[in-house]
Amino acid sequence: MIVVMKKGATEESVQRMAQRVEEMGLKAHVIYGTERTVIAAVGEKRNGERETLESYDDVEKVVPILAPYKVASRETKPDPTIIRVRDLVMGGGTIGVIAGPCSVESEDQIMQSARQVKAAGATGLRGGAFKPRTSPYSFQGLKEEGLKLLAAAREETGLAVVTEVMTPHLVELVAQYADVLQIGARNMQNYHLLQAVGETRKPVLLKRGPSATMEEFLLAAEYVLDQGNQEVILCERGVRTFETHTRFTLPLASVPYLRERTHLPIVIDPSHGTGIASLVAPMCAASVAVGADGLIVEVHPDPRHALSDGAQSLTPDAFAETMEQCRKVATALGYKL
Amino acid sequence: MIVVMKKGATEESVQRMAQRVEEMGLKAHVIYGTERTVIAAVGEKRNGERETLESYDDVEKVVPILAPYKVASRETKPDPTIIRVRDLVMGGGTIGVIAGPCSVESEDQIMQSARQVKAAGATGLRGGAFKPRTSPYSFQGLKEEGLKLLAAAREETGLAVVTEVMTPHLVELVAQYADVLQIGARNMQNYHLLQAVGETRKPVLLKRGPSATMEEFLLAAEYVLDQGNQEVILCERGVRTFETHTRFTLPLASVPYLRERTHLPIVIDPSHGTGIASLVAPMCAASVAVGADGLIVEVHPDPRHALSDGAQSLTPDAFAETMEQCRKVATALGYKL
Amino acid sequence: MIVVMKKGATEESVQRMAQRVEEMGLKAHVIYGTERTVIAAVGEKRNGERETLESYDDVEKVVPILAPYKVASRETKPDPTIIRVRDLVMGGGTIGVIAGPCSVESEDQIMQSARQVKAAGATGLRGGAFKPRTSPYSFQGLKEEGLKLLAAAREETGLAVVTEVMTPHLVELVAQYADVLQIGARNMQNYHLLQAVGETRKPVLLKRGPSATMEEFLLAAEYVLDQGNQEVILCERGVRTFETHTRFTLPLASVPYLRERTHLPIVIDPSHGTGIASLVAPMCAASVAVGADGLIVEVHPDPRHALSDGAQSLTPDAFAETMEQCRKVATALGYKL
Amino acid sequence: MIVVMKKGATEESVQRMAQRVEEMGLKAHVIYGTERTVIAAVGEKRNGERETLESYDDVEKVVPILAPYKVASRETKPDPTIIRVRDLVMGGGTIGVIAGPCSVESEDQIMQSARQVKAAGATGLRGGAFKPRTSPYSFQGLKEEGLKLLAAAREETGLAVVTEVMTPHLVELVAQYADVLQIGARNMQNYHLLQAVGETRKPVLLKRGPSATMEEFLLAAEYVLDQGNQEVILCERGVRTFETHTRFTLPLASVPYLRERTHLPIVIDPSHGTGIASLVAPMCAASVAVGADGLIVEVHPDPRHALSDGAQSLTPDAFAETMEQCRKVATALGYKL
Repeated sequence: MIVVMKKGATEESVQRMAQRVEEMGLKAHVIYGTERTVIAAVGEKRNGERETLESYDDVEKVVPILAPYKVASRETKPDPTIIRVRDLVMGGGTIGVIAGPCSVESEDQIMQSARQVKAAGATGLRGGAFKPRTSPYSFQGLKEEGLKLLAAAREETGLAVVTEVMTPHLVELVAQYADVLQIGARNMQNYHLLQAVGETRKPVLLKRGPSATMEEFLLAAEYVLDQGNQEVILCERGVRTFETHTRFTLPLASVPYLRERTHLPIVIDPSHGTGIASLVAPMCAASVAVGADGLIVEVHPDPRHALSDGAQSLTPDAFAETMEQCRKVATALGYKL
Repeated sequence: MIVVMKKGATEESVQRMAQRVEEMGLKAHVIYGTERTVIAAVGEKRNGERETLESYDDVEKVVPILAPYKVASRETKPDPTIIRVRDLVMGGGTIGVIAGPCSVESEDQIMQSARQVKAAGATGLRGGAFKPRTSPYSFQGLKEEGLKLLAAAREETGLAVVTEVMTPHLVELVAQYADVLQIGARNMQNYHLLQAVGETRKPVLLKRGPSATMEEFLLAAEYVLDQGNQEVILCERGVRTFETHTRFTLPLASVPYLRERTHLPIVIDPSHGTGIASLVAPMCAASVAVGADGLIVEVHPDPRHALSDGAQSLTPDAFAETMEQCRKVATALGYKL
Repeated sequence: MIVVMKKGATEESVQRMAQRVEEMGLKAHVIYGTERTVIAAVGEKRNGERETLESYDDVEKVVPILAPYKVASRETKPDPTIIRVRDLVMGGGTIGVIAGPCSVESEDQIMQSARQVKAAGATGLRGGAFKPRTSPYSFQGLKEEGLKLLAAAREETGLAVVTEVMTPHLVELVAQYADVLQIGARNMQNYHLLQAVGETRKPVLLKRGPSATMEEFLLAAEYVLDQGNQEVILCERGVRTFETHTRFTLPLASVPYLRERTHLPIVIDPSHGTGIASLVAPMCAASVAVGADGLIVEVHPDPRHALSDGAQSLTPDAFAETMEQCRKVATALGYKL
Repeated sequence: MIVVMKKGATEESVQRMAQRVEEMGLKAHVIYGTERTVIAAVGEKRNGERETLESYDDVEKVVPILAPYKVASRETKPDPTIIRVRDLVMGGGTIGVIAGPCSVESEDQIMQSARQVKAAGATGLRGGAFKPRTSPYSFQGLKEEGLKLLAAAREETGLAVVTEVMTPHLVELVAQYADVLQIGARNMQNYHLLQAVGETRKPVLLKRGPSATMEEFLLAAEYVLDQGNQEVILCERGVRTFETHTRFTLPLASVPYLRERTHLPIVIDPSHGTGIASLVAPMCAASVAVGADGLIVEVHPDPRHALSDGAQSLTPDAFAETMEQCRKVATALGYKL
């Protein structure tokens, strides 16, 4: 941590701060510059100290040096974490594709979806049984009935089931049916929920909140890891910016950026990231090219009659073609898809 | 809802869409423009139809006309909702001030805080017992012990207690001690939690999520209202933008904007909204001038030893002075503070 | 400047960086932490070095300590700069109000506007003669004819004329008629233009670009100051964020934030900052309360027939009432308006 | 244009608005909904009317239907515009790569750069002679001397020279040396400059402003096209968002989004878009995969001694490897690179 003193801070004030730093169990090195004095605070503390030091009048700012996450860090574990659930593999050069409808709507719909996405090459099946909806008046999902239908679809196709859990008391129920527990973007900082899924031994697909910084994203993963669950998949699904022509702004640079900092696999959700079906295919190909470990894509047998997210869902044919393009890029670059 | 067809959409395609609109129980008016055909869909439906219609190839975009929230709307209830809990009053020209530390840290700290903020004119006491923290390694609050200390502080000072509840299964416990249930910004779209506080009969202070649109904010309030709890206080606490010199960007225009659309009271949190103690006082005065129904301000007896949010907490003296300035502005403009 | 080395950087690598820092004419202090080594680079250099140092593989990041602006800085000149042009005074506790239409449209319109805003208490007259318009097909202003009309309005009312100059070769012409040269938000980083107005001895009203950081804003002012023109007025007019319900997001915290860092006066433009006439009055009052040195407000004798910005222009009556409210707040807080 | 009346607007008020719409030369269709009345305004007008109509009290909002740009639109010209200058070709399935240093620093540096990027497969040479710098104290470029060095490098290598022009009076000079005139992001809405380059017959590479919407971007292109210069290359170089871990947030979805709306070629600048050399290579591959018509990449013979942008410049070796990866992706997807 570097404590930058204000211009004109007295020597007394500098010494007081240095002492405060030492009280925190850190070692203080005072460096007198031509215009500013700074105090380098050396040691392992990572939390809370910064705010405390910034509350002093003579302190201009405090600059943290260490990343606040540990278990998620590549420094802690240099080897990539590879997730394997049934045929779904993500990480270490293998790209896993999870596809399916936004919501489970009926037996027919989910069965048909499962067969179609499997035929095109997906190894995971997505589908919401409990749906977080912006409006209380929108369709909220089939709930446990939806989970049963997902399990039936897995039974037939062998696809790994990826579905969202929205609140701690439902974790046990959802975990009975799901292969991968999804934490939605709205819940990225729902800490009780993160701890609850951290206590299971199911892989967790953690979606980035639409205004979460990379540090907050990795610290949310850290909440899960801290409970002993080592299988977290990071999912970039776009951030909220001034751009409204797409539903969110999808920053693919997150993939190589995160890769340098964490061992966890990183998947892209171009459906929510763009919100427009015609942009999904090119963004899938680009996600593969940028080095993503996986994709999660909305596919619906009949998007025009979908109960949610119709505008961003691919038809089964469009999905098959998208997979084709992705496979070409993966092969060209030496990834397995 | 206005369905804008793509240029060159055939008459057949237009008729198909018009029919689809009618199938949804809406009435379709086709208008042929010089370059585009649009279909006005008339009726009361507000959800889901938009996405469905946008999934058609020949549709360029769908423009909603009606706001998706109802109960929160000023059209539904033109009179302002006034919240009264003990001496804390918010709305209808009266400004309520809630003040206190970020976290409850000890009996001494919360008692001292309560006395000091009361002396300066606050009628509500804030203080976190359950703390949502970005890092799992940060101080997470005193939990039930903290709630008891808040109740003791209320006992002595008569201040209304405002404290956060983070997860549905704790609502009952927190409601035993709190006068107002706070929903934090990270949980603005935690729908199970919104429903759980909606089932209580305690007023709810709902913080805006850092990237929530006004529509999402009002729809989150709608989740609470929809359960029968009519007392929701909207709290603007800043949004996340490219500006990093302040912790968040605090848009005071939210107050008059929301005022035109909702009957719910609107309070401002300049502590989180700026993150810098020296900016809090001027932003409090500005909040009063812009017409806010209340303020929620972090005050700590000794910010430099606070366990959280030290950099943005006012000292009791600074808070007293801030209240002085706010009272001058309120008086000048005819508000009661 | 603090150079943070990557974890595992060898001693050789650290020494190489320290040497590189010294080659730049800075003094290097190496500090060995428990997990990272950092090098404090002491000296007066402020530009370019950072990027260079960040290009080394073993460097994780470089943290600047000194602000990159000098002349604009309060450290350089602690006393507030006060702008005085005719009766328009801004700074040092006096609030100046500039009002008038978006564009000069006709003699009648500008004369009527000038009389009306003067009657309500404005001391500056705004009005665009050269208009930067997003679309090449929109009304682009009356050009020199507009400047002449502004001068005529000044002749009659004594108001100081504030008008925009868009390109270097027009600076001389506009300066013949204007009392204050306005640099629009789109041109905040048009460096040739900044230098050109820096060469005049007319005060410059510099609008913040919609995505400019505070540092970039102050550095743009520095371009003007660096040419010897010491009279720069900083104008916060809102930033572009994900919020689309208002035209821009207007962060009033900019006023106290800038106040701590610069001696230049700071004015607020609530018309562009919100884009909605009904939000302008409360935001004017809030701007006064937050400590702004001035306001710039769009007022049109007949907003419904304005050639530009009709939706955000106040009627003369609404403006008079707004001034009334602002005066109450100013008086209550001891400012002169 | 759809004019949405406020709830409770009287019939008289509706008729007054309908009449106002007809006065504008548009045809008014009144549609009475269950909660709102809307007026569809049919006709070809695209500018200004919206603001005027929104200034009426009884109008809730006005929704434009037509895109405000015309010449740039794919509806006007369905065939892709292909830019050809020397060996640089962009558009219609051919990907052009422009590479070189941020600034021209010396004869040696630019000659070496030119040879190296050509050897790796680039067909365009970038290099700034006039440099827009945030700080007035930073290196501002070699100016005309820099242009001469670029011309010499072209002489030897045959690469097309792409260089920035910052102000109208320099357009003639820069056009004497450059093959493509670059408009920087800060100048995207410098309308006099756009018109000046529009009067030349050199292709223009127009960079998106960091907070420009897609509509503003296309309207800026329209300023150039409107002067008769049909060769505009759109360059996405990232937008400013709350993300600060990368220099900007680079939204590759802009490519397919723009493709659907305009015939102009679209190139990506991953150097400015990320600001971090190690992220440039994967983002180049992703840009090719998403369908970009070109790349513009910063390459410096010795990034650690670059006078600007060292941290985001590739070494010649890294660039050669990046080109290799891009070629694989291009070949796999059937593009020519």
